[in-house]
Amino acid sequence: MLSPKAILVVLDGIGDRPIPQFNNRTPLQAAETPILDKLARDGCCGIMDVISPGYPVGSDVAHLTMLGYDFENDYPGRGPLEALGVGMDIGENDIALRGNLAHVDHSLVIVDRRAGRQIPEAEEFVGAVDGLVLENKPGIVFHAKHSTEQRVACVIRGKGLSMAFSSTNPNRNYTPIEKSVPLDDSVEAKNTASIINDITFQIYVKLKESPLNEKRKEKGLPLVNTILFHGAGKLKKVKGFQEKYNLKAGCVTGNGLIRGVCKYVGIDILPCKGATGTLETDLDEKINVLLSNMDNHDFLLLHIKATDSTGHDKKPEKKKQFIEKVDKALARLISNMDYDSTYIFITGDHTTPCEVGDHSGDPVPVLIAGPTVIKDDVEKFDETSCAAGYLSRIRGKDFFNLVLNKLGKLEKFGA
Amino acid sequence: MLSPKAILVVLDGIGDRPIPQFNNRTPLQAAETPILDKLARDGCCGIMDVISPGYPVGSDVAHLTMLGYDFENDYPGRGPLEALGVGMDIGENDIALRGNLAHVDHSLVIVDRRAGRQIPEAEEFVGAVDGLVLENKPGIVFHAKHSTEQRVACVIRGKGLSMAFSSTNPNRNYTPIEKSVPLDDSVEAKNTASIINDITFQIYVKLKESPLNEKRKEKGLPLVNTILFHGAGKLKKVKGFQEKYNLKAGCVTGNGLIRGVCKYVGIDILPCKGATGTLETDLDEKINVLLSNMDNHDFLLLHIKATDSTGHDKKPEKKKQFIEKVDKALARLISNMDYDSTYIFITGDHTTPCEVGDHSGDPVPVLIAGPTVIKDDVEKFDETSCAAGYLSRIRGKDFFNLVLNKLGKLEKFGA
Repeated sequence: MLSPKAILVVLDGIGDRPIPQFNNRTPLQAAETPILDKLARDGCCGIMDVISPGYPVGSDVAHLTMLGYDFENDYPGRGPLEALGVGMDIGENDIALRGNLAHVDHSLVIVDRRAGRQIPEAEEFVGAVDGLVLENKPGIVFHAKHSTEQRVACVIRGKGLSMAFSSTNPNRNYTPIEKSVPLDDSVEAKNTASIINDITFQIYVKLKESPLNEKRKEKGLPLVNTILFHGAGKLKKVKGFQEKYNLKAGCVTGNGLIRGVCKYVGIDILPCKGATGTLETDLDEKINVLLSNMDNHDFLLLHIKATDSTGHDKKPEKKKQFIEKVDKALARLISNMDYDSTYIFITGDHTTPCEVGDHSGDPVPVLIAGPTVIKDDVEKFDETSCAAGYLSRIRGKDFFNLVLNKLGKLEKFGA
Repeated sequence: MLSPKAILVVLDGIGDRPIPQFNNRTPLQAAETPILDKLARDGCCGIMDVISPGYPVGSDVAHLTMLGYDFENDYPGRGPLEALGVGMDIGENDIALRGNLAHVDHSLVIVDRRAGRQIPEAEEFVGAVDGLVLENKPGIVFHAKHSTEQRVACVIRGKGLSMAFSSTNPNRNYTPIEKSVPLDDSVEAKNTASIINDITFQIYVKLKESPLNEKRKEKGLPLVNTILFHGAGKLKKVKGFQEKYNLKAGCVTGNGLIRGVCKYVGIDILPCKGATGTLETDLDEKINVLLSNMDNHDFLLLHIKATDSTGHDKKPEKKKQFIEKVDKALARLISNMDYDSTYIFITGDHTTPCEVGDHSGDPVPVLIAGPTVIKDDVEKFDETSCAAGYLSRIRGKDFFNLVLNKLGKLEKFGA
């Protein structure tokens, strides 16, 4: 077998808990998944704690971990990943933040911390403040780019910036925008907090006069006249994926955060218009993009988001149906890929139980199929069936070594 | 589900090894346990290494670990836990030790290091030396309180004490009491070792003349004329349970050491007269106390000791019978608790194989039942059945995160 390849399918938030309407089965147990089950029969399964048993984890930290990065040292925070995900450039001295477009009154008290969530003019509002400079802080530039809904990726560039400042987003309405304060005694921290506060005020000055707000007011919509900041971070120096593993890697995803993670570690983002990260995502196109990139990549990550969103939305029936849609799409993948030289890994980045509506610390199922993969007795890809498999219960930090092991990319330690 | 609660049942020393007279089944495998088996069928199971595979552990370290404390940093030693367990006050500068009432001859050679174990006058002997002061060491006071059998909890209070001194208990007869020596070059270590030796001598002076010893001599019983010291420790600063987890916790136990662990971490000790820690313990009363404290607690620990003692005593038949008694008592618990909003965790703190007569490093079975707990195929709560369950093989340090995960008390890391 010459240069085997690996595909990792991440079903975001796939794990779940028993659902009464499914006769106490999970959405994955209740779903008809002939392809996933065939792969389970062909290969071996297990369960995985991405960090450790019981510990809930975000998708960004989970993906970094599963890709073999040490989240405790390598996680840059949400801001930089969001900014990378929307295609912004970030320098190593820049500070990246997540912003929320919001509505404040004239005394800067928050009326709607998400300005209604669906904001058709979001790009225009954000464009109006992108490139903002401060008269009293020469050399500082504020960049912003719309992400999804009310979300804005923000980058502050200039000299003398520190990470030691507090956020301005209080995460609730009817309270003033929080004033950023320095979190240590340095000149840089004082300066950065002051820059954040000045930017906040200048954004208000710019946006409150926007004619777009006149129209929103007429329609009775929340105004968009501020950006609330949180999730600040700086890039960290991490070893790029290709240098680290000597693998050329690509990713198909419709999700900005995962795009950000991939850019951060140097995994190609493979363009795919139909990938929306929603229930309506074009899985066939995603599979096509994947298949057409098999020749020029060693490792391909297929990230599928809506398994998670349906858990957040507490919609088990939709989660089940979407899992069935994924299963059908995987049929095309496995009938068109070179099954003799390609390993397929299928897992989740965390569980999102519909009962909870958020990530929980339950383990996720894992499946490995492909040439010379040892076969166990697992006949179905689901939470409990996989737990009885050959892989037993593993940790996320070991996951990528399983991939590398199959690809023969790990040198033995010792003689 | 509003504010779910959790009950943790610890069957001390539950795990065991094959017993020939049970057709090579363990006491837990041989016992009739319809309730434990029903819970196993209702929920999911696994096995747990409290520290790591093969490593034997004491009940104190095991409980601390299972409650989410880091024993390497947080374990204060046996002395302070014993003292807390019998209700003594300990200050942060005090040194607490375990003592054994013992019989020495006039040259301080040990005749019986446990003075016969059963000592009806133990409280009077200990009372006679409680509050002892040393003429040549002003400000030093020795406090003592009888615990069980020959055991005494001891506290030394005063200024300039160090932990760097050796024990006096050689753990065998026909050898002199060991002289405590300083274990570093500090003045405090020298001073403390000297205090230990002076206290040892003063106790001998006080007790040898006791009229109680005249009577013991007449009866041919070992004299009680010294206390042998070991297990010295100081309290450590640990985060209290409620502050650490935002959970109000209570414990029902008849065992001093577990009471000590609970006091140490700030878990309420729920009074229960019938809880004796022996085969005759009143399990029904323990269950009643537990049930009547469900409303005002979020987490309740039910500790049951005699599963361990029967292992220490190498009595498999008694261990099996006691397990069956526990199973009957659990019937009352589950038929009276609110099964829709209460999780029940059942496990042991370590194995105490009857063959060994002491703790071994074999894993313990674990069971989780309750609302929305995933169901696996395990039909019986025992060592090997549980090993085939969904939880697979976990570590004690992750155990409490499983509880917190069910109670929704862990914040996710990342986004």
